[in-house]
Amino acid sequence: TLQHLFKQIFKASLEIQEDDHRKALLVSRKKHPEDTLVSINNVKVGDGRQRLIAGPCSVESYEQVEAVAKTLKQEGIKFLRGGAFKPRTSPYDFQGLGEEGLKILKDVAKKYDLSVISEIVNPKDIEMALDYVDVIQIGARNMQNFELLKAAGSVDKPVLLKRGLSATIEEFINAAEYIHAGGNGNIMLCERGIRTYEKATRNTLDISAVPILKQETHLPVWVDVTHSTGRRDLLLPTAKAALAIGADGVMAEVHPDPAVALSDSAQQMDIPQFQNFVSSLVESGLYKREEEVVNQK
Amino acid sequence: TLQHLFKQIFKASLEIQEDDHRKALLVSRKKHPEDTLVSINNVKVGDGRQRLIAGPCSVESYEQVEAVAKTLKQEGIKFLRGGAFKPRTSPYDFQGLGEEGLKILKDVAKKYDLSVISEIVNPKDIEMALDYVDVIQIGARNMQNFELLKAAGSVDKPVLLKRGLSATIEEFINAAEYIHAGGNGNIMLCERGIRTYEKATRNTLDISAVPILKQETHLPVWVDVTHSTGRRDLLLPTAKAALAIGADGVMAEVHPDPAVALSDSAQQMDIPQFQNFVSSLVESGLYKREEEVVNQK
Amino acid sequence: TLQHLFKQIFKASLEIQEDDHRKALLVSRKKHPEDTLVSINNVKVGDGRQRLIAGPCSVESYEQVEAVAKTLKQEGIKFLRGGAFKPRTSPYDFQGLGEEGLKILKDVAKKYDLSVISEIVNPKDIEMALDYVDVIQIGARNMQNFELLKAAGSVDKPVLLKRGLSATIEEFINAAEYIHAGGNGNIMLCERGIRTYEKATRNTLDISAVPILKQETHLPVWVDVTHSTGRRDLLLPTAKAALAIGADGVMAEVHPDPAVALSDSAQQMDIPQFQNFVSSLVESGLYKREEEVVNQK
Amino acid sequence: TLQHLFKQIFKASLEIQEDDHRKALLVSRKKHPEDTLVSINNVKVGDGRQRLIAGPCSVESYEQVEAVAKTLKQEGIKFLRGGAFKPRTSPYDFQGLGEEGLKILKDVAKKYDLSVISEIVNPKDIEMALDYVDVIQIGARNMQNFELLKAAGSVDKPVLLKRGLSATIEEFINAAEYIHAGGNGNIMLCERGIRTYEKATRNTLDISAVPILKQETHLPVWVDVTHSTGRRDLLLPTAKAALAIGADGVMAEVHPDPAVALSDSAQQMDIPQFQNFVSSLVESGLYKREEEVVNQK
Repeated sequence: TLQHLFKQIFKASLEIQEDDHRKALLVSRKKHPEDTLVSINNVKVGDGRQRLIAGPCSVESYEQVEAVAKTLKQEGIKFLRGGAFKPRTSPYDFQGLGEEGLKILKDVAKKYDLSVISEIVNPKDIEMALDYVDVIQIGARNMQNFELLKAAGSVDKPVLLKRGLSATIEEFINAAEYIHAGGNGNIMLCERGIRTYEKATRNTLDISAVPILKQETHLPVWVDVTHSTGRRDLLLPTAKAALAIGADGVMAEVHPDPAVALSDSAQQMDIPQFQNFVSSLVESGLYKREEEVVNQK
Repeated sequence: TLQHLFKQIFKASLEIQEDDHRKALLVSRKKHPEDTLVSINNVKVGDGRQRLIAGPCSVESYEQVEAVAKTLKQEGIKFLRGGAFKPRTSPYDFQGLGEEGLKILKDVAKKYDLSVISEIVNPKDIEMALDYVDVIQIGARNMQNFELLKAAGSVDKPVLLKRGLSATIEEFINAAEYIHAGGNGNIMLCERGIRTYEKATRNTLDISAVPILKQETHLPVWVDVTHSTGRRDLLLPTAKAALAIGADGVMAEVHPDPAVALSDSAQQMDIPQFQNFVSSLVESGLYKREEEVVNQK
Repeated sequence: TLQHLFKQIFKASLEIQEDDHRKALLVSRKKHPEDTLVSINNVKVGDGRQRLIAGPCSVESYEQVEAVAKTLKQEGIKFLRGGAFKPRTSPYDFQGLGEEGLKILKDVAKKYDLSVISEIVNPKDIEMALDYVDVIQIGARNMQNFELLKAAGSVDKPVLLKRGLSATIEEFINAAEYIHAGGNGNIMLCERGIRTYEKATRNTLDISAVPILKQETHLPVWVDVTHSTGRRDLLLPTAKAALAIGADGVMAEVHPDPAVALSDSAQQMDIPQFQNFVSSLVESGLYKREEEVVNQK
Repeated sequence: TLQHLFKQIFKASLEIQEDDHRKALLVSRKKHPEDTLVSINNVKVGDGRQRLIAGPCSVESYEQVEAVAKTLKQEGIKFLRGGAFKPRTSPYDFQGLGEEGLKILKDVAKKYDLSVISEIVNPKDIEMALDYVDVIQIGARNMQNFELLKAAGSVDKPVLLKRGLSATIEEFINAAEYIHAGGNGNIMLCERGIRTYEKATRNTLDISAVPILKQETHLPVWVDVTHSTGRRDLLLPTAKAALAIGADGVMAEVHPDPAVALSDSAQQMDIPQFQNFVSSLVESGLYKREEEVVNQK
């Protein structure tokens, strides 16, 4: 029938259009079928080994960062995160130590042979940050701060792009495209929960986003279990889910003394909790320690 | 200071109230710390072994159901699902075979030694269903159909309660309480995705709900990967996540010929796809086949 | 170009399909371009005059209902609402007086020459309700309780169908179609807020739904300002918005003593507040009292 | 009872804390009970007269802007909006004319005695913009671009702050506080729809946000009917709702030839449609033209 014929043409046209559109994106797997490996101080994220990023929500002092870094070193973890520029809902909340915080991260990371990931929030600070960080993080609230994306696209430094608070996957991919279109293809994506009506968790971890992003793009995909759940008791189970579903790694917040943390005090692990978190992941069979650490333990 | 004192009292009061409330619920872990095992024809759901439920969205014919049941038997799966009463958005969509569908399920299940799970949608049909099903399913659209919950609470038959389209976890737990309060404590919960703004998936699988429900209640928790994602290509990765996070089992839809299915044609697996799904879960190390099947394979 | 041609065919096919679908629905304006007037004891809802429905959340006693009814009479309002069967999140909350509550409503309404609107929650109670109510209400939690919709479609009594907690407009229209397809075309729709991430209000009033429902269907459309906002202080402004945007009427809850109400105590108006609510609507020019009342005042 | 006493203390403590918090905010009505009037070239927004802002989504040419400006002048409208820096989902969509676009707006506005409202997206452009615009707009995607808010707070120019795509009202108020805390109290808020599951409209207009923002803050509140609905057929009804509920004004997009617009072609009005929009608002009694225009018509 004519009706049926129309439907067939309709579907065919739809697929052609969608294909064309996706093919056009530099970050799409259609454009570039092989996985992109993002190299950070000789560690290649996306190579099949699943990794961890950890560190305090905010950089508060050299001692605080060092306490965490020492633990990361012992656990064989290579990536240290910490916030120096903090986007906070209220102007009266702690706004971060700024460049001073980046300096602390760099000094500690050098001592413990770690790579630094830290968020930059102003396009004008991207250049400055190159001196301190190994990975520029662009946070959820800035996922569609296109000026910042363009600035990050203009430099030669890996970028960790977090999904916006209520960004669709399509918008997330397009945000990554802003960075790639600017010339910087070293992009990693990070699912960090989306805003829904459910209030049992701070956000709702959209775990399905991981396989979708892996299919649609050729970029490594991380899961931030701290911000997706906002609950310390859910970090371990959601990390297992993230590793099982195929994320390239998991990010979590650790603080030597969460009770006095200047931000996110309710959801950061303390150091023994973090050590237990790593051990539990190892025991579950879903996570493997680096070999040198295995030999020591 | 006075301010501080108030805050302390505030927090203490809050905790007391919340504790009291949760303690009062029959389904809460505070009331009953041990896991509830739901016994279905000698299989004990909740005993630590993770299981699968599978079957077609709608019962269409004896032959269709048998084709699936035969496969389940071969794979060592004990639970056959199929819809006889179908709650459909439009009155002009296929509404299910009704009691005739339940009869088909029962006959096929008997032949292949399986247990039947099927949805009931009208309180007056609960009694009739006892003759046919081993587990009464209450679907997402009826999670707050309190008359149906009360009817299910008045009989002595296991109930699989699915989370509502946009139910909070608290509402979900209270819906289960309606069944328990009626006298029927054989309740299993099923996360099946929630409604959000994201349209890449049919619903958003709220994977964190699994550990929360396990903590807050003593009931077994399933994950329906078919309805949470609505995408055949996401069934395997989300099933892995569900098993890794600690669900008691995974539910998925299988149809001998999805292209001609009377409902959900885009998201059901065909039989070879389902066999591959089970094998892949086994290979991942996250799922174990029943022993008798292992011996044969 | 071929690409362009495809796009044109695509759009044409899409429109044909959508048109066909909507044309098929009995409730759609394409099927029936004229407004449906729903006649309730000689009052014709949908005739251009905007009306009010008011009454307590739950029927608690004859005296309680009478206090409200007397006020309605004085204000020239024709519709008395009150809940006798209450769908409540917890089984331990007040569940309503049941048939006894319907009897109270009928007796009071007769004395004050009002029409009764009350919610029915079990398909088996629809027949019984015919003796007591002038309008059967189907509540938000039951919008996709298709058995209840079918039962309401099988009788000859006006139905007020409330939008589900997180129903799309398309699902809402299809739910109405279930009633019409059963043979009962006397349907009124009621927007009552949808579930979103925003917590400043109990739900988010989707005010745009009113003109969309008026365009897509030929049915009268009400706005329930009490449940959409859950805040007494927002009843008046949202009622103004509802009247300005073209709703056929506004529903609000009134209780002689909200502080001791058995449900919804935080959001019901007391009698002086309700009188002030009506006066303020009249003063705004958006609402007109019935003539007989104007003559007396 | 002890339980009851705790509840009383609990409530009292809660209120004290909330009061204290709100009192602290410079934008809160508790801090400053009188309405703030924002003066823009001698027009005082917030003085009780409800106003319109109109103009094209993107500035495309002098002629295009002039065609709209001429119409605004005839209709007695004082505020011309137009986008020169366009935050677009895809990097391959039209990004705006930049400073050249601002220059066009300024030249046309001068000729027709209008005030210019235009969005700025990079903190470094705020100073430059002072030469061209009368009101700096901060768009939805930048509502939590705190560096941009701080930059806007450091200058002496009115700011129109749009609510974020899925910002809570509390976050919206805190974003305004960033501007005020920087020293600039000339802030106007703009509700523009929030992201929900409903897809009949581009966003869901949260009409209740208007009275809440008027209660909680002392700032003028606008409603952008174009972006909230994304549908030309809903602009008039939602504008009526916005005026009825007490917004200080309504913003809408107008383009001389929407079919060829470089952005938002599906939702802009053409000039005759806009003239009809204004006339219909006047006829509804909800909007009053400026006196000089009334005299001429």
